[in-house]
Amino acid sequence: MKYHETLLQVRFCEVDAYGVVWHGHYISWFEAGRNELTERFHMGPFQLKEMNLLAPVVELTCQFKLPATFGDSVVIQTTMERTEVAKLIFYYRVLHKENGKVLATGSTTHVLTDLKGTLLYRVPPDVLEKIEAMRQYLEV
Amino acid sequence: MKYHETLLQVRFCEVDAYGVVWHGHYISWFEAGRNELTERFHMGPFQLKEMNLLAPVVELTCQFKLPATFGDSVVIQTTMERTEVAKLIFYYRVLHKENGKVLATGSTTHVLTDLKGTLLYRVPPDVLEKIEAMRQYLEV
Amino acid sequence: MKYHETLLQVRFCEVDAYGVVWHGHYISWFEAGRNELTERFHMGPFQLKEMNLLAPVVELTCQFKLPATFGDSVVIQTTMERTEVAKLIFYYRVLHKENGKVLATGSTTHVLTDLKGTLLYRVPPDVLEKIEAMRQYLEV
Amino acid sequence: MKYHETLLQVRFCEVDAYGVVWHGHYISWFEAGRNELTERFHMGPFQLKEMNLLAPVVELTCQFKLPATFGDSVVIQTTMERTEVAKLIFYYRVLHKENGKVLATGSTTHVLTDLKGTLLYRVPPDVLEKIEAMRQYLEV
Repeated sequence: MKYHETLLQVRFCEVDAYGVVWHGHYISWFEAGRNELTERFHMGPFQLKEMNLLAPVVELTCQFKLPATFGDSVVIQTTMERTEVAKLIFYYRVLHKENGKVLATGSTTHVLTDLKGTLLYRVPPDVLEKIEAMRQYLEV
Repeated sequence: MKYHETLLQVRFCEVDAYGVVWHGHYISWFEAGRNELTERFHMGPFQLKEMNLLAPVVELTCQFKLPATFGDSVVIQTTMERTEVAKLIFYYRVLHKENGKVLATGSTTHVLTDLKGTLLYRVPPDVLEKIEAMRQYLEV
Repeated sequence: MKYHETLLQVRFCEVDAYGVVWHGHYISWFEAGRNELTERFHMGPFQLKEMNLLAPVVELTCQFKLPATFGDSVVIQTTMERTEVAKLIFYYRVLHKENGKVLATGSTTHVLTDLKGTLLYRVPPDVLEKIEAMRQYLEV
Repeated sequence: MKYHETLLQVRFCEVDAYGVVWHGHYISWFEAGRNELTERFHMGPFQLKEMNLLAPVVELTCQFKLPATFGDSVVIQTTMERTEVAKLIFYYRVLHKENGKVLATGSTTHVLTDLKGTLLYRVPPDVLEKIEAMRQYLEV
C-alpha cells in the first residue's frame, strides 16, 4: 500500500486559543489530500459532477495524536480501501514534515450518487476504470 | 437611519492564537447580518438566484476597534446606503452585547448581475420595489 | 437520557459548491453545542483553563444522514457518556428545526490534561463534582 | 517596488454555493502571504510575541475583480508601505497563476503594541532594523 502525499503549511488562522491547530481544520486537510489524489484520476469533485456524479461524505473519523501549530509544515498521506460497492473509503495520516511524527489519522467514507443524491445501483464502467487506476497507483 | 440587528455568540473556533476573534471572521458576521436583513425583503442570495440575479461583493472594508473573545455575545447592526445604480452598499457595526461598545465597523459593496456575472444595465422594477421596501424599513 | 439543545442558523459561508453545508462545518456545530452545555457547569474551555486544565479532542466521529443548506435552522442535541477515567465522551445529533429530521450524528472524545498536556492521573474532586452535576442534568 | 510571492491551491471548502471562492477567504490568503513575508524577517506573529509585541489588524480593505474557483492556483503578491509611526501597512494582489489576471487587491493596516495591547510610543531599534531589512527586500 502506498500513500499519496500532499504538503501543507499550517495557517495562522487555523490555530486556536490554545495555540494549536483547531481539530476541525484537519477535515479540510484530509479533503485537500483526497482531492489532489482523486483529481489525478479524474475523480475530483468537479470532474465527478461533469459525469453527473456526486461522492458525498457519509462518515468521518479522526484520531488526534499530537498537536500542530503555526509555522509547522504537515504532510497529508492519503490512500483508499478496495470495496465492492458504490462506496469509496479513504484513509489519511497527517505527519509533521520535519520530525515525521504522526499528528492525526482518519477516514472518510463516500457513496457514489447521481446529481439528485440517489445511490448508484451500479458504478458506470468508465468510473470503475478510474477507481481501478487509482487502486493500482496506491497498490491497494 | 435604523440598523437591523442580528445576535451572534462567538464560537471557540473563531478565536485565534492571541485569544481574540480572528479578524477574518468578522466578514462572516457581516454576511450573517446582511443576509438576515435582505432575506426579509426577498433579496437573500438564494432568493436573488431564483430571480436569475447575483449580488457579488466587489469591495469590502473593515475597521477593528476592540477585540471580541469566546464567551462574548455580539450584535451585528446592518444598514444600507441609497445608490442610484445597480449597486448595493451595506454598512455594519459589531457591538459587544453586554457593554454596548463598538468592536468593529465595515462595509460591503455589491453589484447586481445576471447569472453569467454581467452587470445589469437596468434594475428590474420588482427588484427596485424590494430595495425600496428595505430602504423604508431602514429609514435611509 | 436528555439532550442539551442549541439552535443555530446555517450561514451562507458554510454552504459549499454543491449547495449543501460542507461536511467539516458540522464539527464547529458539535463544538457550539458542547460548549453551551459545558459552560453551564463551569467546564467550558476557558473555565477549564482557569483551573489549569485542558480537555483536548482525541477522537472524532461523524455520520452524515441528510444535507442542510442556507436558510435552514438546525438544533444541535448534545449529551455525554458516563466514563470512569479522566475522559469525557460527548454525543451529538443535528436536527433540522422545521421537520425534525436527523441530519447528522457524531461524537467527540476528550481527555483531561494539565496545561502541559499531561494526562491527569486523578480527576480533581471539584471537577468530578461539575461532571456529576452535568450528568444529573443530562440524566446519564 | 517588489512583491513577495506565495503560491496557494484553492481548496474545495473555500468555494461557496455560487461555485466561486467565498469572498471572506481572501483574508486568510492575504494573511498567508503576509506571514510568509514577515517570517523571513523575524516579524511573524509568533516571532513578534517572543519580543513581547503584537501587530493586530486595525483596518482591512479588499477589492474583488474576478472570481477564483476550485482547481485554480493563485499567487499572493505582498508588499508594504513605508510609514513613520508604529504602524505597518501591507498591500496584496491575488493573481490567477495560469493566466496572470488580477483576481483581487487589498490592504491590511497593523499597529505595533505590547502584549497588553498598548500602542508602542516608540518602535524598539531591533524591530526597526527588521522592518528596514524587509523594506530593502521589497524595494520600498
